[in-house]
Amino acid sequence: MTLLDARPHIALTMGDPLGIGPEVVAKALVDPRVRAAARLVVYGQNHVLQLASGICGIDPLWFRVAADSARARGPLAQEPVLLDFDCPDALAEGRPQPTKAGGLASKTFVEEAITDAMRPLGDPRRVDAIVTAPICKESWALAGYRWPGHTELLAFRSHARHHAMAFVSPKLRVALATTHIPLLALRDVLTIGAVFTPIDLGHQLCRSLGVPRPRIAVCGLNPHAGEQGLFGDEEHRIILPAVNMARTQGIDAHGPFSADTLFVEAVQGRWDLVVAMYHDQGLIPVKLLDWEHAVNVTLGLPFVRTSPDHGTAFGISGTGKASASSLIEGILLAARMASISRNPGESASRTIISPERLTPPRPDADLG
Amino acid sequence: MTLLDARPHIALTMGDPLGIGPEVVAKALVDPRVRAAARLVVYGQNHVLQLASGICGIDPLWFRVAADSARARGPLAQEPVLLDFDCPDALAEGRPQPTKAGGLASKTFVEEAITDAMRPLGDPRRVDAIVTAPICKESWALAGYRWPGHTELLAFRSHARHHAMAFVSPKLRVALATTHIPLLALRDVLTIGAVFTPIDLGHQLCRSLGVPRPRIAVCGLNPHAGEQGLFGDEEHRIILPAVNMARTQGIDAHGPFSADTLFVEAVQGRWDLVVAMYHDQGLIPVKLLDWEHAVNVTLGLPFVRTSPDHGTAFGISGTGKASASSLIEGILLAARMASISRNPGESASRTIISPERLTPPRPDADLG
Repeated sequence: MTLLDARPHIALTMGDPLGIGPEVVAKALVDPRVRAAARLVVYGQNHVLQLASGICGIDPLWFRVAADSARARGPLAQEPVLLDFDCPDALAEGRPQPTKAGGLASKTFVEEAITDAMRPLGDPRRVDAIVTAPICKESWALAGYRWPGHTELLAFRSHARHHAMAFVSPKLRVALATTHIPLLALRDVLTIGAVFTPIDLGHQLCRSLGVPRPRIAVCGLNPHAGEQGLFGDEEHRIILPAVNMARTQGIDAHGPFSADTLFVEAVQGRWDLVVAMYHDQGLIPVKLLDWEHAVNVTLGLPFVRTSPDHGTAFGISGTGKASASSLIEGILLAARMASISRNPGESASRTIISPERLTPPRPDADLG
Repeated sequence: MTLLDARPHIALTMGDPLGIGPEVVAKALVDPRVRAAARLVVYGQNHVLQLASGICGIDPLWFRVAADSARARGPLAQEPVLLDFDCPDALAEGRPQPTKAGGLASKTFVEEAITDAMRPLGDPRRVDAIVTAPICKESWALAGYRWPGHTELLAFRSHARHHAMAFVSPKLRVALATTHIPLLALRDVLTIGAVFTPIDLGHQLCRSLGVPRPRIAVCGLNPHAGEQGLFGDEEHRIILPAVNMARTQGIDAHGPFSADTLFVEAVQGRWDLVVAMYHDQGLIPVKLLDWEHAVNVTLGLPFVRTSPDHGTAFGISGTGKASASSLIEGILLAARMASISRNPGESASRTIISPERLTPPRPDADLG
């Protein structure tokens, strides 16, 4: 095995052709850190990436392979490869906006990347990780797809029983118990299992990033974590039992704590991961601290998946101004995680939660 | 009128005798900026403040006046004055913890300060502002008081029809639509009026701080501010009507916006004030950005009121370690706001909302 072969294979989906995806992909392709860390296969359209490169004033090198050709079914020796899909042409629609063509194309890229990530070890077309440039939900809806986003589609197609959204930035790691739901719907979906999953998967994430015994802190739902039941009882009914369940599994989990002070402690280095109960509780600190370097990670899938922490940004699409920092960080993080999962001896690999692990602790169990 | 007289009179309540209140009050008393900005009357207990000063290794000067003496009923020429109240002695209870005596004493300090703040202009004992060191809610409960905190007591005693909690820090100003309630109780209390009040009072706050036409941004309740109704409808049903109502009053209000990106914009200077829908949404960014310099301001009272953004911190009480930064910032901010309200020509004074201003816009009104 050559040194080159040790780099993981990463699928990079180009996202909505009318968004900033193609531009940030083009910029990432000329980043030497990216080239050193991974063998990239871009799932996209050749003419779109060519136009985006021109807009950005850069000249990245890639090897075009028609996605429906015989060559695309064998091993791809060169790198980076662009798998060129014969999809409807969103660029024909003109200005950056939600379009049916953009939805059809961007969905195809993701679906094909999932197919390749699910291939067995040894398959020449298998990829170790997927990094997704932003899609437009409205474009997907126009194309007839009702997925709220990448995460839910990835989880469904890969048959993940438990999954969670997490964010990794230089200053903070956050996993979420719930994601894109109305805030008041938390009443129905915030269960002990929903809180346990991000603790468990976040623990594995930290270990896969080289933290041997991650210190995990869990947010309360209510102001001051309910102040001993004064403002709500979810801390006692739901969150504490989930923390205790994690502790019986040997996870160094603590809480629930008042969220406003907890993030301050995490930034000061007291915690390796914070588990937030809902979207804004986790995303406000992540974006405030380090917008450009935050990476979205989907936990619990049978492959590594990351994405930049931004959307299609139609407003600046076509100007070449979009920063590729978050996408580049996403590729580097995926490469790091995938390398470890290709060489499981290095650290903990991603594990599938067995049903026993979800059994609540017996009332007489020692909760530590 | 001498130059000295131009400084506002500020009541500084000592807080729970067993918390860090007395220590931070002692530290504030020796801060030259505080002395230059305000004439202080401390509402507390002489022996407690003496002990705290010794613990901190400082020797502040004050003039003790027994609160029940004839002298306390006249003008207090010296400064700073300590009004010494004959309350139960919490120090007799020993270690820092919630106590009935602490609750009785700290409640007395606040009640007396409110009485003096409500006196008519020209009364020699009138104070222009109240700055409160932290009380312990459990101590208040032990003493038989069920107030969730200072704010609610202040609002009730001063007959404030509308009030709101706000935070001012060097990087961010935030006003809250709701405060110490269970998160899921938002279903019942988040109304158009509840969202309008912090917009209106926050607008007045900014003007009182010298911003002539404050740019105000309002957070959504749901992830991505509901993403056009995909995750919840409160943005459309409640928040947007409140924003429009404010705009018909001539307030430059905008939103609702996705909270996770909005705070980034605010820090970058795009907005003068952010209105958050609930406690953690507003407090996570405030504490993360500038814990030590954030000041809590109660809006809508007939007098200025600020407090530090921390609690009794029993864990470090008695060690002299507590930082007085937030209390000092609170006194300086109160002095600034009170000076302006003593000299209303300088800027907008605090206004009382007239009933007409709360009438919803007519359906045919131009919402701008």
